[in-house]
Amino acid sequence: MLSENIETFIGCEASYREAKIVLFGAPFDSTTSYRPGTRFASAAIRHESYGLETYSPYQDKDLNDYKIFDSGDLELCFGNTNKVLDKISERTDIILKDNKLPFLIGGEHLVTLGAVRSVLNKYPDLHIIHFDAHADLRDDYLGEKLSHACVLRRCHDLVGDGRIFQFGIRSGDKSEFVWSKQGHTFMHKFDLQGIEDILINIQDKPVYFTIDLDVLDPSCFPGTGTPESGGVDFISLLNAIIKICSQTNIVGCDLVELSPNLDISGASTALACKVVREFLLALQE
Amino acid sequence: MLSENIETFIGCEASYREAKIVLFGAPFDSTTSYRPGTRFASAAIRHESYGLETYSPYQDKDLNDYKIFDSGDLELCFGNTNKVLDKISERTDIILKDNKLPFLIGGEHLVTLGAVRSVLNKYPDLHIIHFDAHADLRDDYLGEKLSHACVLRRCHDLVGDGRIFQFGIRSGDKSEFVWSKQGHTFMHKFDLQGIEDILINIQDKPVYFTIDLDVLDPSCFPGTGTPESGGVDFISLLNAIIKICSQTNIVGCDLVELSPNLDISGASTALACKVVREFLLALQE
Amino acid sequence: MLSENIETFIGCEASYREAKIVLFGAPFDSTTSYRPGTRFASAAIRHESYGLETYSPYQDKDLNDYKIFDSGDLELCFGNTNKVLDKISERTDIILKDNKLPFLIGGEHLVTLGAVRSVLNKYPDLHIIHFDAHADLRDDYLGEKLSHACVLRRCHDLVGDGRIFQFGIRSGDKSEFVWSKQGHTFMHKFDLQGIEDILINIQDKPVYFTIDLDVLDPSCFPGTGTPESGGVDFISLLNAIIKICSQTNIVGCDLVELSPNLDISGASTALACKVVREFLLALQE
Amino acid sequence: MLSENIETFIGCEASYREAKIVLFGAPFDSTTSYRPGTRFASAAIRHESYGLETYSPYQDKDLNDYKIFDSGDLELCFGNTNKVLDKISERTDIILKDNKLPFLIGGEHLVTLGAVRSVLNKYPDLHIIHFDAHADLRDDYLGEKLSHACVLRRCHDLVGDGRIFQFGIRSGDKSEFVWSKQGHTFMHKFDLQGIEDILINIQDKPVYFTIDLDVLDPSCFPGTGTPESGGVDFISLLNAIIKICSQTNIVGCDLVELSPNLDISGASTALACKVVREFLLALQE
Amino acid sequence: MLSENIETFIGCEASYREAKIVLFGAPFDSTTSYRPGTRFASAAIRHESYGLETYSPYQDKDLNDYKIFDSGDLELCFGNTNKVLDKISERTDIILKDNKLPFLIGGEHLVTLGAVRSVLNKYPDLHIIHFDAHADLRDDYLGEKLSHACVLRRCHDLVGDGRIFQFGIRSGDKSEFVWSKQGHTFMHKFDLQGIEDILINIQDKPVYFTIDLDVLDPSCFPGTGTPESGGVDFISLLNAIIKICSQTNIVGCDLVELSPNLDISGASTALACKVVREFLLALQE
Amino acid sequence: MLSENIETFIGCEASYREAKIVLFGAPFDSTTSYRPGTRFASAAIRHESYGLETYSPYQDKDLNDYKIFDSGDLELCFGNTNKVLDKISERTDIILKDNKLPFLIGGEHLVTLGAVRSVLNKYPDLHIIHFDAHADLRDDYLGEKLSHACVLRRCHDLVGDGRIFQFGIRSGDKSEFVWSKQGHTFMHKFDLQGIEDILINIQDKPVYFTIDLDVLDPSCFPGTGTPESGGVDFISLLNAIIKICSQTNIVGCDLVELSPNLDISGASTALACKVVREFLLALQE
Repeated sequence: MLSENIETFIGCEASYREAKIVLFGAPFDSTTSYRPGTRFASAAIRHESYGLETYSPYQDKDLNDYKIFDSGDLELCFGNTNKVLDKISERTDIILKDNKLPFLIGGEHLVTLGAVRSVLNKYPDLHIIHFDAHADLRDDYLGEKLSHACVLRRCHDLVGDGRIFQFGIRSGDKSEFVWSKQGHTFMHKFDLQGIEDILINIQDKPVYFTIDLDVLDPSCFPGTGTPESGGVDFISLLNAIIKICSQTNIVGCDLVELSPNLDISGASTALACKVVREFLLALQE
Repeated sequence: MLSENIETFIGCEASYREAKIVLFGAPFDSTTSYRPGTRFASAAIRHESYGLETYSPYQDKDLNDYKIFDSGDLELCFGNTNKVLDKISERTDIILKDNKLPFLIGGEHLVTLGAVRSVLNKYPDLHIIHFDAHADLRDDYLGEKLSHACVLRRCHDLVGDGRIFQFGIRSGDKSEFVWSKQGHTFMHKFDLQGIEDILINIQDKPVYFTIDLDVLDPSCFPGTGTPESGGVDFISLLNAIIKICSQTNIVGCDLVELSPNLDISGASTALACKVVREFLLALQE
Repeated sequence: MLSENIETFIGCEASYREAKIVLFGAPFDSTTSYRPGTRFASAAIRHESYGLETYSPYQDKDLNDYKIFDSGDLELCFGNTNKVLDKISERTDIILKDNKLPFLIGGEHLVTLGAVRSVLNKYPDLHIIHFDAHADLRDDYLGEKLSHACVLRRCHDLVGDGRIFQFGIRSGDKSEFVWSKQGHTFMHKFDLQGIEDILINIQDKPVYFTIDLDVLDPSCFPGTGTPESGGVDFISLLNAIIKICSQTNIVGCDLVELSPNLDISGASTALACKVVREFLLALQE
Repeated sequence: MLSENIETFIGCEASYREAKIVLFGAPFDSTTSYRPGTRFASAAIRHESYGLETYSPYQDKDLNDYKIFDSGDLELCFGNTNKVLDKISERTDIILKDNKLPFLIGGEHLVTLGAVRSVLNKYPDLHIIHFDAHADLRDDYLGEKLSHACVLRRCHDLVGDGRIFQFGIRSGDKSEFVWSKQGHTFMHKFDLQGIEDILINIQDKPVYFTIDLDVLDPSCFPGTGTPESGGVDFISLLNAIIKICSQTNIVGCDLVELSPNLDISGASTALACKVVREFLLALQE
Repeated sequence: MLSENIETFIGCEASYREAKIVLFGAPFDSTTSYRPGTRFASAAIRHESYGLETYSPYQDKDLNDYKIFDSGDLELCFGNTNKVLDKISERTDIILKDNKLPFLIGGEHLVTLGAVRSVLNKYPDLHIIHFDAHADLRDDYLGEKLSHACVLRRCHDLVGDGRIFQFGIRSGDKSEFVWSKQGHTFMHKFDLQGIEDILINIQDKPVYFTIDLDVLDPSCFPGTGTPESGGVDFISLLNAIIKICSQTNIVGCDLVELSPNLDISGASTALACKVVREFLLALQE
Repeated sequence: MLSENIETFIGCEASYREAKIVLFGAPFDSTTSYRPGTRFASAAIRHESYGLETYSPYQDKDLNDYKIFDSGDLELCFGNTNKVLDKISERTDIILKDNKLPFLIGGEHLVTLGAVRSVLNKYPDLHIIHFDAHADLRDDYLGEKLSHACVLRRCHDLVGDGRIFQFGIRSGDKSEFVWSKQGHTFMHKFDLQGIEDILINIQDKPVYFTIDLDVLDPSCFPGTGTPESGGVDFISLLNAIIKICSQTNIVGCDLVELSPNLDISGASTALACKVVREFLLALQE
């Protein structure tokens, strides 16, 4: 008898029960202010992962040696932001309740808020590490509080001062930089250096790790809605991920803002696939 | 002294005061369920119109001989549908109050609702002519009432049975076709034939005319989010527009669902420009 | 517990056991002489089908009312044509043995040969209806017998004179047209007219129906390796499919030569999805 | 010993001496006012012709049975229009002096002027048949007399009233249509009908036949700088070419305004290749 | 009353009277020898700038704090190089006469000549700093003196030996490198190092600063007609601009050779927007 | 009399007899497992080379000063791997017999095997230097021995242990890395450092040098079927090529895996052209 057509990220073929990490996608981009398209990211990453190896020569580890489950994409209705965030929180709740690690693939950056709400419920002492080109610290965007451009500010509403650590930031309103400097978040501009300095403070804390892929330079990652020149390269990102995963207690994470159709060469999606692989492997002890 | 950089649709350079028709854009696509991108349409149409002539050999009329004002695009926040519809209604209100004809360029089809709400205020006996590939008659879409897929149903909520006339419809849920047949709307499937038959009923009524450009076949108009094979060609659309404009009392109108980046040849945007020109000319007595 | 990520053509969610029709993909294009890329077609059709409705206003039927199973794509090795054809035959064998109808999605046209070999085994009196821009009757192509350009000739090797009926042909070597005229195949050039005339001869025979989508005009279907101007439009193809399915005994069928990346507007893939839907519905009594 | 890499249009492999027709390309687009790119047309047509058959089922003729020479592209300097036109005239002079038919592939439409100047030298009684979406009858364009938008007006300067026959025209300044109607040119708008009526007048005259491929509808030919909806389809163009070639005395001809990179599906270039083939075959007695 | 649709570079909304810097575009590319398309750059930069912030975290300055006027694009006729250069000179003359700084956005590199002619009139002791991948020192190109490939040579005709300082050069005829070495220009090959050394010589001189964006590596800037591997990255360019602007007396400047349609990801246009912002901010004391 | 249209790589216009190096293309990609398209590389490189200078400022050498012959592309049948490899070997044999250096442009990486078979015949002590992102050391790929993913393993079958030197490798099955480490090949991972160390061992040996261009980072070379982040930049590749060519005895070489249509900006093809130029110049004493 013939089987159904199952499509998962490469090497993520464990059963849900045995899995330590659970992938899921949130194909949502309704608040994107400039160029939409991140809704296609999770399906593209899953689909294009078959051009990738399961083995990483960087970490000398193989996805086939670990237990990861890919639960597919949430079915989200465009145009109702609150419902979307609720659905993301619900899925995260289930995964956390079963003592697995939620690994969310966006979608636009606002999806992080849905996951953080849920993770914070379980881990009230949550800290957040944030890689991004953009500060995302606006209090509102054209009057709207639930916007991708406000997502870390909304997270700050939940976790408060001194719990958010931002790296790679090179774009934002002047007021965002000023607000951060007032002590609300730790912000390292332009690149991913200085991670060691913050690790001391959070090594025994539960950490949510959110990576906006536009932290990368558009030369290696043009497939994103708002490309910002002057970003980091793939190896720098890879090394930072490995360092953070090995020295902190990650309890939830995400990867957002790939917009696959903006880079029809496919190189951006291929890079995102490799970041997923390396991220998943770095999360293994 | 040097002047500012003003960008209008070609030949629409009257002052607001003298204008009979007022163009405006609503760059919104947050409820689009499949492929977003119509937010770029109004700017693209305006920008690419400079490759067009102001003269129509079809109607032997020239835009330069009429008084049209292009008031640019609304500034809309993505992610809050109600606010967006309100802004569209407000702009329409102003134009109507000054006894000018509002000519809205989308964006996705939901923007029509904002304009219809306003026009209906002034013309309670409003009838609607609707060209589209899709019925857009769902009561909700994944639980959401304010979706592009429900826009004519929402209009029906406002105007009631027998006031909506649909042409070219070739896609939808079975239930939409059944609901229409129950007498809620008049629906002519597949093409634009039979317009004469309905004109008799509405020739003395105020009419809102909404054209979803995906009524066209994807061969001549691939630049749209949900291309549906089996549509009409440009000449058929042109003739239908001329017939309707010359034999009914149009009090408001729109053109929606161009997604310019999906057709990088530029042919879809060029066609939309030409439809705008011909539509504007057909509206002149 | 969360479920796996299953991806099927829309509305094809029956179990294998209950299904009457079984879809499968053969992502192969190694013998393509001009522009490869049909290997991506079956996955693209499946993935993009979620932009489609299950209901056809043309046939007033709904995929949800029928039992169809989508068994996904074969895993094929590029560069070894014989192995590929064997794998296609094996899958077809299983489906036929279980008294279901095999519905193959290519891939390049050579995949038809794998299916025909299997179907002919079960139905020795097999006749073939062939829609295509190209005659595909070369005896060899640069010395190679197993080429997409020879696939109907290879089928003729199996079924012999008077059993192949070709429509829409408008490209080929002069020798192919001459060879056909010598009585080896029935060929109707340029369009799909005259189908009625042949239906009389084959209405009680088992029929394999192979559609090379490049029979369509490139205006509606640019997404194919060798676009040939002067083809038929979507409605003509749709009507021909309905006519043939309703008046003959189809025992196997395929749809080939979509090359999705060649039409980045997505209109060609969307059309192919609609042809699959209409074809599946037309096969239902 | 290995041979050099010679690239010609398919089936055009006669020696210059034996050839009846001589192809040459003029890769020039400097006066294009909207979107440049026709400079790439002649090389693209030559290169992509290898995806074409030499045999035409429409005319039942084969390029291999005739003597045609492809002399490649002129080396033209961008930015100096007069030099470019002189180079085209020189090449045309050589071909005419050797009693061969010059077949020019543009480039933008202005290249026609270079060829017409030369052909008129040999045939003072020259008449011109012109297929185009655009009238090209402006006296100047932004003050410039040598512009693609003025090319037929410049030809009229040379041949005078009653010698230019225009078909398919659907775009232009109002003044161009008025000027034509004053008796300067014969103009048939929108399509290619009524050719028979003019053939009577010119059947014994020397004719230059210039085809701007944008006479085609953008659905089948999006790869052109200024696509104009409402054009003719491939079969209509093909039939018109065959009719004109068989009933007039063509002494020079050209095909212009393909802009291959604007249609990355390749369908426009493939169509242009087929028009070249059919045109070449139609020119054979 | 509704206002007109004004489109300027973000943050450049001063009146002409109060402005210190005046932007203008020269959408011209007729002498481009390889791939045209820079004519679309100035409009694209203006349009896409709305995806940018007005604040620079690099310089901690905000465009909103300065007085800049965007006077839009010149209306240029393609095909007549002399007229185009004259129009550029005229616009520059006006700006200089009003004691403002002209900031020109190309177009191809030849537009620099129009601006330099005007600036030199006012500042006879003008020096030129030139960032580029190409030497642009040919005396003629295929016999033509007014070509993008000769633009610095034409500038040298005007300013003479020892007044042109070239950086980043990595492509050209051998003769161009030899000619430069003979003492005609200062040339630093491959990158932007060594700027300090020349600043000493020109710090009290009036300087025209021309940046051909292809000085950047194609990895971060593929959207240009002739991409040359081995260029500099964005941060290097940014630092060099800041250094030069802060230590010399810039009296005119330009940014040329973006060809936006060649990079459909939009990353090249986004980078160009950011260079404009940083350049404008660096020019402020 | 007019001449034929000859198309060669720029500056490669020597006669075969006088040439020291002979270029040829093998447009083959049938075993490509992921995204095909390298079949278009050799023609694209040849065609786009006219945008390149013959002079290299890096090496201060000019192609015009050397004797190189471009013998065009082999005519290869897709779908029969053995025949294709034989044709490549035959062409290589001829070139070697005439004491010239074969310079092969792929096509996919498997084409290397055809050339190596021939070169090994003449030079039994052959060593191989291999630049690549992928190890290409699988014994089979989905059961197939003649696959691009196995090409260096097949070469190893011929030359044995200790004769293959791999650089830049960053992707592969775990087993490939293990197998290499067992002493079968020398492998330097991730970049091109450490070349000096191996040069000592092979400086008096005949060397075949194969460059898979995906050794480059996708930021500078997105136009390849399987882009692998973390690669080297152009200058590193250039320096490595110059070092190897100047210090070893190259007796054959190739450049493979450009897939030009995957990078529609043209930057990847332009880079490949420049690598060909620099490689050719580096091979000159």
